[in-house]
Amino acid sequence: MATKQLAVGIDIGGTNTIFGLVDRDGNILAEDRLITTHYDEPGIFVATLYEKIKIAGQKIGASAELMGFGIGAPMGNINKGTIEYAAGLPWKGIVPLADLFHKFTDLPVLVTNDANAAAVGEMIYGGAQGMKNFVVITLGTGLGSGFVIDGKLVYGHDGFAGEIGHTAIKPGQSNRDCGCGKKGCLETYVSATGLKRTLLKIMADSIQPSELRKYSFDELDAEMIYDAAKRGDNLALRAFQHTGRMLGFKLADVVAYTNPEAIFLFGGLALAKDLIFEPAKEYMEENLLSIYKGKVKLLESELSTQNAAVMGASSLIWSHYLYQPKINTRQDGKLQ
Amino acid sequence: MATKQLAVGIDIGGTNTIFGLVDRDGNILAEDRLITTHYDEPGIFVATLYEKIKIAGQKIGASAELMGFGIGAPMGNINKGTIEYAAGLPWKGIVPLADLFHKFTDLPVLVTNDANAAAVGEMIYGGAQGMKNFVVITLGTGLGSGFVIDGKLVYGHDGFAGEIGHTAIKPGQSNRDCGCGKKGCLETYVSATGLKRTLLKIMADSIQPSELRKYSFDELDAEMIYDAAKRGDNLALRAFQHTGRMLGFKLADVVAYTNPEAIFLFGGLALAKDLIFEPAKEYMEENLLSIYKGKVKLLESELSTQNAAVMGASSLIWSHYLYQPKINTRQDGKLQ
Repeated sequence: MATKQLAVGIDIGGTNTIFGLVDRDGNILAEDRLITTHYDEPGIFVATLYEKIKIAGQKIGASAELMGFGIGAPMGNINKGTIEYAAGLPWKGIVPLADLFHKFTDLPVLVTNDANAAAVGEMIYGGAQGMKNFVVITLGTGLGSGFVIDGKLVYGHDGFAGEIGHTAIKPGQSNRDCGCGKKGCLETYVSATGLKRTLLKIMADSIQPSELRKYSFDELDAEMIYDAAKRGDNLALRAFQHTGRMLGFKLADVVAYTNPEAIFLFGGLALAKDLIFEPAKEYMEENLLSIYKGKVKLLESELSTQNAAVMGASSLIWSHYLYQPKINTRQDGKLQ
Repeated sequence: MATKQLAVGIDIGGTNTIFGLVDRDGNILAEDRLITTHYDEPGIFVATLYEKIKIAGQKIGASAELMGFGIGAPMGNINKGTIEYAAGLPWKGIVPLADLFHKFTDLPVLVTNDANAAAVGEMIYGGAQGMKNFVVITLGTGLGSGFVIDGKLVYGHDGFAGEIGHTAIKPGQSNRDCGCGKKGCLETYVSATGLKRTLLKIMADSIQPSELRKYSFDELDAEMIYDAAKRGDNLALRAFQHTGRMLGFKLADVVAYTNPEAIFLFGGLALAKDLIFEPAKEYMEENLLSIYKGKVKLLESELSTQNAAVMGASSLIWSHYLYQPKINTRQDGKLQ
């Protein structure tokens, strides 16, 4: 019987860690999870995770051949196979994640952040199949980005390329505080939280009525603002308009840097479709050099929001076998 | 007798076109020029240029083996081998430069803009030898940029990547007019002209005396401001300070996008050394995510300003033979 090659995609989040066994076509044949916060000790976390993956593989049967472990995690460093000083995870300092896996396996273990994983996922399974130069922007509680240039994800010298969420909208100290400690970062405007902040600013400046004036900042979320905008609430519409324009402003920078074929938007805010895409596209075009105008596609991600993190992580493995980059020491590609 | 392999480096400028025959170590063994504006017809321009190159090669003797033609030109498009709508050149529309050369030769003909050529030059002959991820910023009358990622110049989908001179400092229509038609582009602040504009703004806002108040905008140039700053003129110093800070602000973006090992500054303004480098470095660091802080080198280009354009252009050929990218149709690498 022919074996079925499967990549393990692992999404390490602050609360849950989810994994799936994914075939080359993007079908998830098995999945499971564990509670990240139950493990103070990363070594025990990895041992437990590995055990669960093995069990999931055995359930599929003898036909399953694992090809490697792709991991999406905050502050994941592909060059070193580590997670470095990730604020949202229970482990402090530098976690040598790939090394911990390599106590159990000789298969490739690739670690990067979720936006980079999403970009590779888009290339392997999604709308960027066949594209060589594109960018994926993930819009969740923050804003992440992954750049693919000449068919390869850009990692940079230290493994941390693609952080446009933390480029500033303008110079100066009077800008919005960002969780990263800086001022005026793009994600303080373009993210679920950024949308809320913009709505509050508009409420403060305007005297127009809004159904959202009765909610506190803590009560509000992006979906409520979306629903209000869909019902024609003027302040909610203006909040989306401003969010889209700030995104478009920085997308023009993205184009000037890398001249991509397409930019994909992924995640919660991207689901607001025209409310985000229209002002983003318009303001991006307005800020482009004429050589770029009308050439760059602004597209919705074709990965489903539900499985994207696991699929993105698993795609790192397929991409690895396409290029066999020398990323860290023990990726000898030897199979179990 | 062993032959000496030489790359032809051609710098097409609005006034002069300069070329040199350059060996792998960056020695220019022959050079000559022609007046760009004398040639309304690009076909005759290329025929004349090719003839002059042939003569220069013959002077070196039978030992010279030409390897290809690298061309730096405004709006040079590497993907197509064209110059497209370059405002400063005598030819309108799209000039099929590589095709025109290929009437005479089967050797590779590579065309890109001067900042991209400078980046490859830095990698082949200069301070970026051995580096895989770095950026070169050229500071002249405008601001150009070339990105090298994973050892290769980034060209992008349409061949026009690396235009950070035309990313805006902040959103809005109240910013400085740029020659490109947009508002607030980085090069309206960080360039020889940008420095003059900043000085005038400071003169307008301040009541401090300055030796430069007696000169008109037309009379002023970057060197006069540099000399005044060196003599301690407060407004000139502030103009450099602001110019450096605006550069540093956008260099933080460069780092967030591509996480390079180093950023090289090249050209007139870079010669002001500490007057530019200190505020640029300081403000870049201030605007970096903590993961990048203290890691990215800000360096002077090691290419001499005098020959950089020709050397950069010639380096495209050596880089081509390193990677043999499929860039346009007739680069079969066949030698004369």
